[in-house]
Amino acid sequence: MSSILSQKIKVALIQFKSSNVNKLINLQNVEKFIDKAMIQQPDTKINCPPRMFNSPYSIYKFKDYAEPISSTDLTTPTLSILSKISLKYKIILVGGSIPELDPTTSKLYNTSIIFNEMGQLIGKHRKAHLFDIDIPNGITFKESTTLSPGSKATTLKTTYGNIGIGICYDLRFPELAMISARKNAFVMIYPGAFNTVTGPMHWHLLAKSRSIDNQIYTILCSPARNLESDYHAYGHSLVVNPKGEIIAEAGEGEEIVFATLDPMEIENFRKAIPITTQRRFDIYDDVSANIE
Amino acid sequence: MSSILSQKIKVALIQFKSSNVNKLINLQNVEKFIDKAMIQQPDTKINCPPRMFNSPYSIYKFKDYAEPISSTDLTTPTLSILSKISLKYKIILVGGSIPELDPTTSKLYNTSIIFNEMGQLIGKHRKAHLFDIDIPNGITFKESTTLSPGSKATTLKTTYGNIGIGICYDLRFPELAMISARKNAFVMIYPGAFNTVTGPMHWHLLAKSRSIDNQIYTILCSPARNLESDYHAYGHSLVVNPKGEIIAEAGEGEEIVFATLDPMEIENFRKAIPITTQRRFDIYDDVSANIE
Repeated sequence: MSSILSQKIKVALIQFKSSNVNKLINLQNVEKFIDKAMIQQPDTKINCPPRMFNSPYSIYKFKDYAEPISSTDLTTPTLSILSKISLKYKIILVGGSIPELDPTTSKLYNTSIIFNEMGQLIGKHRKAHLFDIDIPNGITFKESTTLSPGSKATTLKTTYGNIGIGICYDLRFPELAMISARKNAFVMIYPGAFNTVTGPMHWHLLAKSRSIDNQIYTILCSPARNLESDYHAYGHSLVVNPKGEIIAEAGEGEEIVFATLDPMEIENFRKAIPITTQRRFDIYDDVSANIE
Repeated sequence: MSSILSQKIKVALIQFKSSNVNKLINLQNVEKFIDKAMIQQPDTKINCPPRMFNSPYSIYKFKDYAEPISSTDLTTPTLSILSKISLKYKIILVGGSIPELDPTTSKLYNTSIIFNEMGQLIGKHRKAHLFDIDIPNGITFKESTTLSPGSKATTLKTTYGNIGIGICYDLRFPELAMISARKNAFVMIYPGAFNTVTGPMHWHLLAKSRSIDNQIYTILCSPARNLESDYHAYGHSLVVNPKGEIIAEAGEGEEIVFATLDPMEIENFRKAIPITTQRRFDIYDDVSANIE
């Protein structure tokens, strides 16, 4: 069979602290970290900044940091800098996520933006599942206070094959990964920021689950923990291979993590345990069947 | 909300070696082990013998050990003894699985049989996904040489709520658990026998995945390892709670494992992280929607 990943590729995960006070500093930091990653490992093909990297992770501040996102207007502060970087290094940038302002509806979204090697915006994913959580004696957090949810699963075509995108809480819903994997994605990339309660509980387990149930790579890219911000991210950006093994993982602080994704890892595991060809769509429907 | 599990219940998992040579010995062993479990913990409500417990796990021997399975004829050797035991102790027996012979078609199935507290056969599950595996330099095993696959997902109503059933390789396919959980099952029970390669790799991870993605209990019930048989089962029968934590686990040898399933564990976790009410069936179809 021809592989869903055209060649071995190196990915870099940029785990850094976003500043509470200044968007320009956050954007300069992204550039600085990507520069550093590309100097360390110049053969990197995909680079992933974390979730809400241009903004503090506070539902009350998203509006101040939001930008419209349009593939025909890359002049906004965040889009212009990501476009410039992806073109400069000829890399795919899965630009974590940023607060998006829809200029026609004035709605806000948590949106991941993806650039190709020519600096073009090839797609975006609006977080589909809003994170409203209320753990007794634990953490209460309601994104839906200020954000609107996206309305579709996102699978994008790149130079090396298809990639699926989800954001943070989307990870808890297996359907997005099932859909993208069945649309030939070789990886699900989730910019995400679990907290210090849900992180230790489920971060690794969910990433491994998405990988083995779909026999693909899974990448989670978190901000570094910032004890000065309102929201304490878990950190632990990581890459899981199709067998469910963690092949790279950050700690809690600022760090760049590299991993190599190998088409043979996908092919060999799919051959050994052939779930991708032994599903029983005569018993249950294929959740990807009605998705464009 | 009213709970999908009506009360706290204790379950017992019977992990024993099946004999290679004699079906009667296997059935006597089942009875002996269940007697022992019910003496140790008389408040046990559900009791789970392992997969293929009346037969050696060899695709060439299933036919010799197979029985027809009909709720109106409980006189066959295996059905009669399980019916008798469930009535004697007033327990639900999820009778692992046995080789089933369909008398009209002469086809063989790997089938789990479930009895209620009155000794009635309330349902059966025919293994839907046949285990054909070929790991380079590892294990090769093809069930489809002698077995036919089932044609449906199985969710059964019991005194305490609904239970979902899958068998072994069915565990690798998330849909069966998604369907049963969305049909209000409080537990997925998988009689299963992973081997000594796939067991250490994926047994715990898959059980935890089914639990947290559906916020239900997951029970895996394996035979003990028998080095004299053709197939070396992994053992490690276990119970995972809705949060993905292992609350009981056997080793490799003969053992009885007990665990208490608590409706509050399900309710509290579903309240804390409300994925069961935040799914986006406007984006993707509900895989349980077209299932009876």
